[in-house]
Amino acid sequence: MTLHWLEAACATPDSTFIDAARARQGQLTKPLGSLGGLETIAIQLAGLQRSQAPNLDRVWISVFAGDHGVAAEGISAFPQAVTGEMVRNFANGGAAISVLARELGATLDVVTLGTVNDPGEIAGVTRRIIAPATGNVCEGPAMTAAQLDAALAVGAASVAQAAATGAQLFIGGEMGIGNTTAATALACALLDAGPDELAGAGTGLGSAGIAHKAAVVTRALALHRGPDVEVDADVVADTRINADAVVAREYLRRLGGFEIAALTGAFVAAAQAGVPVLVDGFITTAAALAAVRINPGVRPWLLFGHRSHERGHARLLQALDARPLLDLGLRLGEASGAAAAVPLLRLACALHNRMATFDQAGVSKP
Amino acid sequence: MTLHWLEAACATPDSTFIDAARARQGQLTKPLGSLGGLETIAIQLAGLQRSQAPNLDRVWISVFAGDHGVAAEGISAFPQAVTGEMVRNFANGGAAISVLARELGATLDVVTLGTVNDPGEIAGVTRRIIAPATGNVCEGPAMTAAQLDAALAVGAASVAQAAATGAQLFIGGEMGIGNTTAATALACALLDAGPDELAGAGTGLGSAGIAHKAAVVTRALALHRGPDVEVDADVVADTRINADAVVAREYLRRLGGFEIAALTGAFVAAAQAGVPVLVDGFITTAAALAAVRINPGVRPWLLFGHRSHERGHARLLQALDARPLLDLGLRLGEASGAAAAVPLLRLACALHNRMATFDQAGVSKP
Repeated sequence: MTLHWLEAACATPDSTFIDAARARQGQLTKPLGSLGGLETIAIQLAGLQRSQAPNLDRVWISVFAGDHGVAAEGISAFPQAVTGEMVRNFANGGAAISVLARELGATLDVVTLGTVNDPGEIAGVTRRIIAPATGNVCEGPAMTAAQLDAALAVGAASVAQAAATGAQLFIGGEMGIGNTTAATALACALLDAGPDELAGAGTGLGSAGIAHKAAVVTRALALHRGPDVEVDADVVADTRINADAVVAREYLRRLGGFEIAALTGAFVAAAQAGVPVLVDGFITTAAALAAVRINPGVRPWLLFGHRSHERGHARLLQALDARPLLDLGLRLGEASGAAAAVPLLRLACALHNRMATFDQAGVSKP
Repeated sequence: MTLHWLEAACATPDSTFIDAARARQGQLTKPLGSLGGLETIAIQLAGLQRSQAPNLDRVWISVFAGDHGVAAEGISAFPQAVTGEMVRNFANGGAAISVLARELGATLDVVTLGTVNDPGEIAGVTRRIIAPATGNVCEGPAMTAAQLDAALAVGAASVAQAAATGAQLFIGGEMGIGNTTAATALACALLDAGPDELAGAGTGLGSAGIAHKAAVVTRALALHRGPDVEVDADVVADTRINADAVVAREYLRRLGGFEIAALTGAFVAAAQAGVPVLVDGFITTAAALAAVRINPGVRPWLLFGHRSHERGHARLLQALDARPLLDLGLRLGEASGAAAAVPLLRLACALHNRMATFDQAGVSKP
């Protein structure tokens, strides 16, 4: 058995640059630690970028869109046609992430992996169509093995493009009516949690809608979670292979979505390429958890933009030991919460790089 | 008795623009409420700016510096000379707020009201010297009535300058070794709280230092808080006058500082001029609470940048029913936490102004 590309080694942060950045923070004209999370972020980015002067001028945002068979179960407040309509809106500049990307001077890469309402060729949209939608997870797996591999590769291709343009930060976003249901099912499987703990309002369900969604996820888990997700004996015998990774990839195939798998592929590829990732909300964090389970070397490359209002996000963040920068009650997706945090990362870099030291400024120390 | 200028009427937010902004947020291509705090901020700014398209291109930051007699009690981790040294650092561009102002394209107005270590004339620093330092609050009042009025006027003068340049947001910051002690004493008096509840680490005290600081604040309150801060009968008989306002102004005189009083004067003047204010951390929030006690019409004009790591800040925010944008463990002052939140306000405006509506984008509604 050959190792899946997802399991190939990730780059590693450089402790020399981390130590140097920490020492510099202690020399800048402020009480040590008084810039809190902005100090932490600058130190972390110095290690990831192997740089004395971390920099986020070039930010790349990929938004992956895909439809979900589970939408047939009536688990969204919006009709399924919205996925395709929003792809057009992303490209035309009217969506939240379009506005944010322009304001940040970031590259916005819109990629569709398949929508039931197909908007066709649109300038500014990359078509990597796998199918109009995933399978309904209440009736069968979301994806075939080939579809999963195709979706993972779409994410990796975006990262390769980002890296080729010198991107210093990769942000992944998603659009897909029904994808909080898929992400909830995936999160339940990965965390061994119950749908009642994780199911939330998504685009705006009331309590009855959330209860129905939890029931749908329960049906999906009854079909897909359990002892049949096992690892073959010859795989276990191969010491290069992490059994957790095989299980996580299988749950991603059975319960995820095209855009969720693209995000997982992107996050792994970014860590392998040494490009820091800024994670968005509930759905992208579910994809990130899958990525970390598949390849633990991904974790150091993940920064977290915000704590979403979506119910299950807190639990996913906890599982990843993540402390997001923002907590503004956002629950839109599209990478919007990560994008909103970019200016903080940039200010953290500017402070680190451009403040005077006590010696330079002639300021007395404690 | 004539009314103090602090008690003159403030401008009022315009509910027509608030309603219009709220309606627009419901038409933009996203689930209603899914941009959380970014929606709230845009709606609030629309009302304050009386605009359909709130805008924060022109941001004004005033940092007020002043020394404190209470520094003689050994309540800071840094020597008193640092106040004057940091004034030079602000002007030379090496301090945190200097870097942040440049990154934001904001005007940075550095104003010194008096430092023991006087750096003299420095390009880029406005000198409004009242005295080298306030009185030691353990031995007498921080300020005379004339000094208080002078400090309040310094704040108002900065706001007048800001308004004259068309500033769309006013941020106030402070520098003064010992000023968390003064702010703690003022906050205790205004909130009727004990020093043990509010005293914190300031620039970096350990537990013994914090206990000493609380003891110093206890001595100051024993001298200044109590029944002798009373309102004359002829004042009470004057129905135009708010007795709480008189008491708050007297506590500000007895326990505050030049830079704290300048902030209070600035916040009142901004509300009177109809310029929104973004409040920084513990010390500026103490000044803001004094401003609101003196003139309740100030409150609608206050936005809050961040929740400081400084212990007493949470209590002050609670008293003002304030929900800050950021919670990053900052505790530097200098307006740094407010400045860090400016990009979020700007993104909130951009999203409000530039996103497409469902109709414009041809996206289906729920």
